[in-house]
Amino acid sequence: MPADTTSPQTPPDFAPLIQRLTEQSAAHPDLHHVGATFLPSRNRVIEFIEVMRRLVFPGFFDPDRLTPDTLADHTRDLLTQADALLYEQTREALRYKLNLDGSGKGDDCEACDIQARDLTNCFFNQLPELRRLLLTDVHAAFDGDPAAQSYDEVIFCYPGLDAIFTHRMAHCLYTHGVPLLPRMMSELIHNDTGIEIHPGATLGESFFIDHGTGVVIGETVVIGDRVKVYQSVTLGALSTKGGQDWRGTKRHPTIEDDVTIYGGAVILGGETVIGKGATIGGNIFVTRSIPPGHTVTAEMPNLILRPPKAPKGELPTDFDPSI
Amino acid sequence: MPADTTSPQTPPDFAPLIQRLTEQSAAHPDLHHVGATFLPSRNRVIEFIEVMRRLVFPGFFDPDRLTPDTLADHTRDLLTQADALLYEQTREALRYKLNLDGSGKGDDCEACDIQARDLTNCFFNQLPELRRLLLTDVHAAFDGDPAAQSYDEVIFCYPGLDAIFTHRMAHCLYTHGVPLLPRMMSELIHNDTGIEIHPGATLGESFFIDHGTGVVIGETVVIGDRVKVYQSVTLGALSTKGGQDWRGTKRHPTIEDDVTIYGGAVILGGETVIGKGATIGGNIFVTRSIPPGHTVTAEMPNLILRPPKAPKGELPTDFDPSI
Amino acid sequence: MPADTTSPQTPPDFAPLIQRLTEQSAAHPDLHHVGATFLPSRNRVIEFIEVMRRLVFPGFFDPDRLTPDTLADHTRDLLTQADALLYEQTREALRYKLNLDGSGKGDDCEACDIQARDLTNCFFNQLPELRRLLLTDVHAAFDGDPAAQSYDEVIFCYPGLDAIFTHRMAHCLYTHGVPLLPRMMSELIHNDTGIEIHPGATLGESFFIDHGTGVVIGETVVIGDRVKVYQSVTLGALSTKGGQDWRGTKRHPTIEDDVTIYGGAVILGGETVIGKGATIGGNIFVTRSIPPGHTVTAEMPNLILRPPKAPKGELPTDFDPSI
Repeated sequence: MPADTTSPQTPPDFAPLIQRLTEQSAAHPDLHHVGATFLPSRNRVIEFIEVMRRLVFPGFFDPDRLTPDTLADHTRDLLTQADALLYEQTREALRYKLNLDGSGKGDDCEACDIQARDLTNCFFNQLPELRRLLLTDVHAAFDGDPAAQSYDEVIFCYPGLDAIFTHRMAHCLYTHGVPLLPRMMSELIHNDTGIEIHPGATLGESFFIDHGTGVVIGETVVIGDRVKVYQSVTLGALSTKGGQDWRGTKRHPTIEDDVTIYGGAVILGGETVIGKGATIGGNIFVTRSIPPGHTVTAEMPNLILRPPKAPKGELPTDFDPSI
Repeated sequence: MPADTTSPQTPPDFAPLIQRLTEQSAAHPDLHHVGATFLPSRNRVIEFIEVMRRLVFPGFFDPDRLTPDTLADHTRDLLTQADALLYEQTREALRYKLNLDGSGKGDDCEACDIQARDLTNCFFNQLPELRRLLLTDVHAAFDGDPAAQSYDEVIFCYPGLDAIFTHRMAHCLYTHGVPLLPRMMSELIHNDTGIEIHPGATLGESFFIDHGTGVVIGETVVIGDRVKVYQSVTLGALSTKGGQDWRGTKRHPTIEDDVTIYGGAVILGGETVIGKGATIGGNIFVTRSIPPGHTVTAEMPNLILRPPKAPKGELPTDFDPSI
Repeated sequence: MPADTTSPQTPPDFAPLIQRLTEQSAAHPDLHHVGATFLPSRNRVIEFIEVMRRLVFPGFFDPDRLTPDTLADHTRDLLTQADALLYEQTREALRYKLNLDGSGKGDDCEACDIQARDLTNCFFNQLPELRRLLLTDVHAAFDGDPAAQSYDEVIFCYPGLDAIFTHRMAHCLYTHGVPLLPRMMSELIHNDTGIEIHPGATLGESFFIDHGTGVVIGETVVIGDRVKVYQSVTLGALSTKGGQDWRGTKRHPTIEDDVTIYGGAVILGGETVIGKGATIGGNIFVTRSIPPGHTVTAEMPNLILRPPKAPKGELPTDFDPSI
């Protein structure tokens, strides 16, 4: 069959497809936000996090050098930007939420703007406390990791600190009832770090997540002070069969002060309490409470060594299999 | 030794190094694409995914508000961009592949352009079906996760949906034989989400990946409808010793409808079938088939509790070790 | 309470907050780099990695096509950029480190510039060797993965190769004593790939990381040639209680040539040696040495199957539970 080479590159007439897509959107409001007057913006939330990082850690992530002389102006610039972004996005989120029922109430909600302003003011009033907490986190990471060379290395490099920084902001907005934005923030940093902390989770001070990839911390987790968590730890729900029926219940564990949880440990259940000072070994599966101060490990399965090209299970005579 | 401070910053003469690098490239064609007339571009593939996300979910990720009046023009704009990108990259990929043997056949392959146009048309004809499937995925995520507050939260925030969205596009191209692009797409979203789905894997509708970091779904996996998968689940091959010898065989499991697979479970083998409605417990290692409807857990290793500063294995009297 | 709707959007007077933030910064030098004359820049390090990727793999990631005629100029351009970035950042890092004690010695350290120039020259002199090693890694990935279609697919798509590429550069700088930059580099690629390789780790040639998300390779790990590692493998320390006290000791395992380590395996301890040619099964927990050539698996816990709506533990008559 000779190819028609005259115009192989001509795109088809898009009109019929546009028609189908438009009709599909009309039939499925979940698929689109056409005609939405208010809607939060992922890009603006990203921008907000970036500005906040520079505001919280002056000089670390700024394109230009800061001096004591320029610090106040620099702070004012960033604060003005961050304030405008948060006010705008909180206002969008509040009005958007009212519009979810199709009533259009959000469009007229001037009270939403006042609430957005109050929430924004409230958030920035807590900024010095946020910085104080983050400093305890930086010190905890340095003290806990022999590979850390300086506090700067923690701030520049540790994904766990990035995740905690973003979480502490998201949690503040979450507890004040800001819709959607907190979860956007936590998933943006989840993408970066592989660490997922639901904005509902409550963290104490001096919290350290080492390595971090694969960590999952659920919505109703409560964590005390000076807790250390390693990679791939799950603090989760026992089962979520039934899905939405579970919303609002305490589904995730409580971790008291001074607990260490090693890599891959899975701790499940809303009534599970890991007592103060306990240590949870790597890859342990825990679904009930652990008393304070205790160390939990598991009976390791026997390892089976097979020498090269020998039948399975035959051990070399010089090897102790009780590994 | 006194330092020569006159010109510490002068770079060396690069000529000898350039010579070495150029010779090295000449000797190792695998290291470079110098002189390639056709080659897919990672940046253009990134651009394509971004445009497609806006096309599939109008209004969610657009910089400006959409209205019913502007929707058709907006759709036409994005469709024109996406079509041009996909046609261009498919054409590059097809011609590039023909040139891999050094014959230069790709340079003359006008039939490649026709094929690229056909494939591109075919892809966009399936766009309404892609959106229909994604809507089932959005609903499955909302229904399955008590932490989800709205469908919007799923579309804005869930990395699982991002991975499934990209996979459904990549799989369409993969099954039509487009070289390289599908795998580029899946690895780009793997970078973002920590979820790796090989473009060869076949997914049913209403697929939900919760949390997601560390999920690996292999090339020959087949997944039914309404399947739920949690973080760090591996659907993999039993062994790939021998590497390339295994190419093209069914190496990965089949998951039937309505299966739930909890976090960390590892299911291996091309003949392994997880029957309809089965539930696979967390951290289970499965290498044979499971009958429909069954729930699989494992005998948990006994946990060993050691009280503070007490000898290993001594338990507090008030604690039941059968945890 | 009637809302004051006159100016709900007016931000508050920022002056008091700026005052508090500035005082907080003054009281906590760990929180800021105000007045720092020298400091590495994360954005410049990102730029360096991007330029190096184009320099190492010509034509793969460049915006324009390369031809044999333009290759030398192209190489010179990229080399000039990469050299300037590395010299600048190494100089910043060396002077910054001297200033950490507040002495201001870094400000006067002209020897730092000479050292930065020497280190930079040294780094680029090793560039052909870096490319040679990376080519062995590319071949190892292709040979080891039946899903790989071509070397190009490995270079374009494999996160493991991205991580190894960045590590080999970072390790070179680390062994030459460059402060901070190597760790920045490894955490930047950790963010992208979910693969964490501390810049101190020593890798042999033909190293292959498949899938990769969740891999953690510690600071004092030593890995031989032709080693294969799958997703979520940890090569870590037995315990880091005591944190900074452990700095500088050999805390992580040694992996000899031709070892394969399957997904989820955890190998811990500075005296743990995995002998040449050994195979470590998936999800195995190893804390002592394994003799050469041996295969290690674990006694799998018995799986428990529960039929639909039947009491726990009751098995279907047609099912062999010795799964």
